[in-house]
Amino acid sequence: MELTFLGTQAMMPTKHRNASAAYLEFKGEGLLFDCAEGTQRQLKQVGVALSKIRHIFISHWHGDHVLGLPGMIQSLGAADFTKTLMIYGPPGTKKLYEHMMQGTVFANSVATEFKEVRSEKVVEGKNFSVECTPLNHVVPCVGYSFKEEDRRRIDLKKVKKLGIPPGPELGKLQQGKSIMWKGKKVTSDSTTYVVVGKKVVYVVDTAPAKEIVKLAKDADAFICEGTFGEELQDRAHEYKHLTVVDAATFAKKAKVKHLYLTHFSPRYPSTKELEKQAKKIFANTTCAKDLLQVKL
Amino acid sequence: MELTFLGTQAMMPTKHRNASAAYLEFKGEGLLFDCAEGTQRQLKQVGVALSKIRHIFISHWHGDHVLGLPGMIQSLGAADFTKTLMIYGPPGTKKLYEHMMQGTVFANSVATEFKEVRSEKVVEGKNFSVECTPLNHVVPCVGYSFKEEDRRRIDLKKVKKLGIPPGPELGKLQQGKSIMWKGKKVTSDSTTYVVVGKKVVYVVDTAPAKEIVKLAKDADAFICEGTFGEELQDRAHEYKHLTVVDAATFAKKAKVKHLYLTHFSPRYPSTKELEKQAKKIFANTTCAKDLLQVKL
Repeated sequence: MELTFLGTQAMMPTKHRNASAAYLEFKGEGLLFDCAEGTQRQLKQVGVALSKIRHIFISHWHGDHVLGLPGMIQSLGAADFTKTLMIYGPPGTKKLYEHMMQGTVFANSVATEFKEVRSEKVVEGKNFSVECTPLNHVVPCVGYSFKEEDRRRIDLKKVKKLGIPPGPELGKLQQGKSIMWKGKKVTSDSTTYVVVGKKVVYVVDTAPAKEIVKLAKDADAFICEGTFGEELQDRAHEYKHLTVVDAATFAKKAKVKHLYLTHFSPRYPSTKELEKQAKKIFANTTCAKDLLQVKL
Repeated sequence: MELTFLGTQAMMPTKHRNASAAYLEFKGEGLLFDCAEGTQRQLKQVGVALSKIRHIFISHWHGDHVLGLPGMIQSLGAADFTKTLMIYGPPGTKKLYEHMMQGTVFANSVATEFKEVRSEKVVEGKNFSVECTPLNHVVPCVGYSFKEEDRRRIDLKKVKKLGIPPGPELGKLQQGKSIMWKGKKVTSDSTTYVVVGKKVVYVVDTAPAKEIVKLAKDADAFICEGTFGEELQDRAHEYKHLTVVDAATFAKKAKVKHLYLTHFSPRYPSTKELEKQAKKIFANTTCAKDLLQVKL
C-alpha cells in the first residue's frame, strides 16, 4: 500500500504546496482523504489515474479541504467512470455537495453515494475498514482511521514438523479453526501467526481532543495537522488547530510508528523549525511535502 | 501591460497544463479571464498577488472555466481584500456563483458585484474598456475584447517649430482642442498624433461564429481556442469548438497582430503539429503554454 501527500498547506495553496488532500492506494483501490482545489492535478503529477478512486473521506467542509470535488467528479465523468463513488463526511455533507455541484452547468454522469458520519465504522471494504471519530473544530469535523485487515499465516515450519501437507486442512487452520490430525487436535493458534494489518490515521483541523490518541493508537502512519509552531499555541487553540508539539505529543501517547505532519500555515515557508520542535517530543516525525510518497 | 496564460488545457487539468484562465495586468490593475480550478495557484507561480484582481470575466459556466472562483474568493477574504470584485459573465452568472459559494461552510467577506452580459460594453475602466459578444457554444458563452484607451500625444517637433512653449496651450491641444497662437488658429490634429491603445481579445468555447472576426478586429493579442487540429473539424464543430485552422482563419480575417492559441484538448500532449497547421494560414501564431507571459 502506498500513501501520497497531495497537499500539505493550510488555508490556501502556495507556490510550493497545495491545500489538503492525501491519497492511499490499497490493493489497487484509491482512498482519498479530503480534496482541496487542485487535487486532481496533483494526482496527475504522481501518475495516479483518477478512476482508481472509490472512496472520498471528507474531514470537514472548509474550502481548503473540499474545493477540488466538483472538478474531480467532472473529470471522472469525462473519463467514463463506471463505478459508484462513495463520499463520506460529517453531517451536512450531502447538502453542501449538492450546492457545489449546482455551481456549474454540468450533467453529472458519475454515480455517487453519501454517508454522513460522526463516530462510527465508516466503511467495511475488501480487506480493510475505516472508522471515524469527531474532532473539535469550528465546524463539524471528523478524523479517519484506515485499518488493513489482520491476516493469519501458516507457520510452515510447524506444519511441516506435524506432517500436514498443503490442502484443505491447512486452509482450515488459516481460517482460525482447529483440525484433527493423526488422532490429535491441532489448533490454529499453535500452527499459524497473525500479520497485523497496517493502520493509517488522518487528523486535520482540530483543537486538542481526547479522541485523537484513541483514534491514532498504534498507527503505522499518523497524518496529523501541525498548522502552527509551539510559539503560537494560543493562536492555534483559539482557531481550533494544533501545534506541531500537540501533534507530536499525541503521536507519542498513541505509540504510533511514524508521525507525518501536514497542513502548515502559509506563514512557514520552511518547515525545518517545525520538524525540530516536534522531534524533541517524538523522534519519528516527518514534515510532509507535496507529492511525498510512502510505502507501507 | 502584461498578459499571462494561467491555463491552456481544455476540459480538465493535466500534468503540464491547467484548465482555462488568462490574466491581464494593466497599470497595476488585474483583469482575469476565466478562473479554472487551480488558477489562484498558477498566479502564485508567476508571483502575482491575488489582491491585484479587480475584474473577473467569465466566458461561460462550464467547470473547466470557473471552478477556481470559490477558492480565489476565499483566499482574497483571508488576505483582507478590501476592494469590490467585479464579476462579469453570461446570463445565469449570479445564481450559479451563489450555488458555488454555498458549497462550503464559509463566511464571505469579499464584496462582489455582478453584471450579466451578452453583447455590450461590459466595463469602462480607468484608461480601458471591455466589450463582449455572444459566441456559439452549448451553454451561454461570451467573448471579451479589452481595449486600452487611445492616447493623443504632442508632436514636439511641430509645436517647437510653431514656438508654443510647455503650458496650458499644449494641454488644450492634447485634449483635442484648437487654440489661437500668435493670431492664427492651430488645430490639435496638426500638432498631435494618436497612439492607438492595445487590444486583447479572449475567445474560447465556440463553434465558428461571425461575431468573432468583428470582436478580434486589429487585436494586438488574439487569444483563441484551438481545441482540435484540422483533422477533427467535424468533431470540433459538433461539440461547438474551433480547430486551430478556424482560429487562424479568424486571425487572418481580423488582421490581428498575434494569435495565441489555447484550450487544447488533452489528446494533444504536444502542440507542435497544431501550431504548424495554424501557421500555414496565419504566420504570427503561438500555441500558448501555461505561465507564458507576453509584454504588450
